[in-house]
Amino acid sequence: MRNIAIVGLGVVGGSFAKALRKHPVEGERILAIDPDEETLKKALEEGVIDEGETSNQRILQQADIVIIGLYPLALKEFIKVHRDDFKEGAILTDVAGVKGVLVEQLMEEIPEQVDFIYGHPMAGRENRGYAYADAEVFEGANYLLTPTEKNKKENLERLEKLITRIGFKRVTLVNPKKHDEMIAFTSQLCHVIAVSLINSDDPERGTVKFIGDSYRDLTRIAKINESLWSELFIENKVELLDAIEGFEKQFQTMKKAIQEEDSEQMESMFRESTKRRIQLEADDKKKR
Amino acid sequence: MRNIAIVGLGVVGGSFAKALRKHPVEGERILAIDPDEETLKKALEEGVIDEGETSNQRILQQADIVIIGLYPLALKEFIKVHRDDFKEGAILTDVAGVKGVLVEQLMEEIPEQVDFIYGHPMAGRENRGYAYADAEVFEGANYLLTPTEKNKKENLERLEKLITRIGFKRVTLVNPKKHDEMIAFTSQLCHVIAVSLINSDDPERGTVKFIGDSYRDLTRIAKINESLWSELFIENKVELLDAIEGFEKQFQTMKKAIQEEDSEQMESMFRESTKRRIQLEADDKKKR
Repeated sequence: MRNIAIVGLGVVGGSFAKALRKHPVEGERILAIDPDEETLKKALEEGVIDEGETSNQRILQQADIVIIGLYPLALKEFIKVHRDDFKEGAILTDVAGVKGVLVEQLMEEIPEQVDFIYGHPMAGRENRGYAYADAEVFEGANYLLTPTEKNKKENLERLEKLITRIGFKRVTLVNPKKHDEMIAFTSQLCHVIAVSLINSDDPERGTVKFIGDSYRDLTRIAKINESLWSELFIENKVELLDAIEGFEKQFQTMKKAIQEEDSEQMESMFRESTKRRIQLEADDKKKR
Repeated sequence: MRNIAIVGLGVVGGSFAKALRKHPVEGERILAIDPDEETLKKALEEGVIDEGETSNQRILQQADIVIIGLYPLALKEFIKVHRDDFKEGAILTDVAGVKGVLVEQLMEEIPEQVDFIYGHPMAGRENRGYAYADAEVFEGANYLLTPTEKNKKENLERLEKLITRIGFKRVTLVNPKKHDEMIAFTSQLCHVIAVSLINSDDPERGTVKFIGDSYRDLTRIAKINESLWSELFIENKVELLDAIEGFEKQFQTMKKAIQEEDSEQMESMFRESTKRRIQLEADDKKKR
């Protein structure tokens, strides 16, 4: 028998619950804590969870693994409030998109009786809430773990096993600094770009009639959860500004080439980007 | 009986041929001119075209509609060389991604006996060549026509009918200036961004392990045909630089908000971008 508790049945937590259910293991029970009664009711009716509570009564005390699907600020608060409620030896993990500041701030707060392994599923969705939770979003996606010295090897292995079991393709272990540097580039910078792009449109000119998949793809993530992302940007300010400046350099070089009608320079940049994208696609297909 | 000639059986011309075949009309024959014999052979074997020539012998003389799937420079050259070969009363159309300069430069070159209606299918693909031609890419896509005073109303209607028949959702008539202004924003700026983004990566740091769909989506079009796009950027330089500067303003505002940890400003920009993206999705589902 093993109990897995999901804290926060939103789009991410809900997807975990559904993915665990979709790839079942005998004797595993899925428990959930979520303030919204309707959400719990729905998840119970759908058979996605076995038990739910709007605030912790007895779930944390039984949970062998706790997956906390909360925003960074709420996560910190949750740990403080519940530090004495966790089961001895439990594995805790989060899903937060920044790690450096978070790991540092939580250092003192993590109770002795648990093993907190920081994690980040690279499978976000633009829509919030359990209604959009979907086991499919994890299929083939990347997962990052940022272990600390305190983590036990066997717990890391158990968590990795669970992650690949529910559909993720690749689990990468990385330190918090490298995590934040990479996420600043692959995720946060992309969101800055998408938001800036769609906000630079003139809403009066009927743009929708003139779009192809380029614009559709580049603005998809402009639909963004404002409080979560401003938290993430501020927590990862230094790395994000670095990524922004790296992008600006390339962007300015291209702008200059256009101004000067320097087709040689443009073509060289296009060849480089083409080569990189083809390489990315090939590497992305590999397992590790 | 009606003959449609496709000039250039690349990814775009080939998709036209396949889409016409997929949505057949009785008595319509599909003819093709392409310098590559293998391509013609393959298209004939697949039953996609009825007749092919590596250079024009008798195809243009029979064609009631000529779809020219060539890059702008090659298109201009083709019209000059073949001005006396077209059938009296034929409708000609192109697929070029810029219109202003092109329409101006071709003004004097279009032979009297034909009706040239400039067009732009908003359904590009990153891969080149007939091997990647696919009728599906047109399904639900936008199509832009930039009629001139010389175009006959009945020919415009015939062409519109053909376009919607082969899967396009929406045909918009627009003047060349507006076309180029909009395309600078919805297509060219997006390509500048995607290329700059992937080129600002450090190729040594194993980025592929840290990507989610954001980065995949934002770099898809970084795989780019270098000679075509440098032509397009230079032909549409003024409008593209305008779009670039509009984007830069928003990007700088966001950068400043991050530097100053101004979460109120960030959240306001996120709310605006979210609203715009939701509106775009809703409008994109409509027919017109």
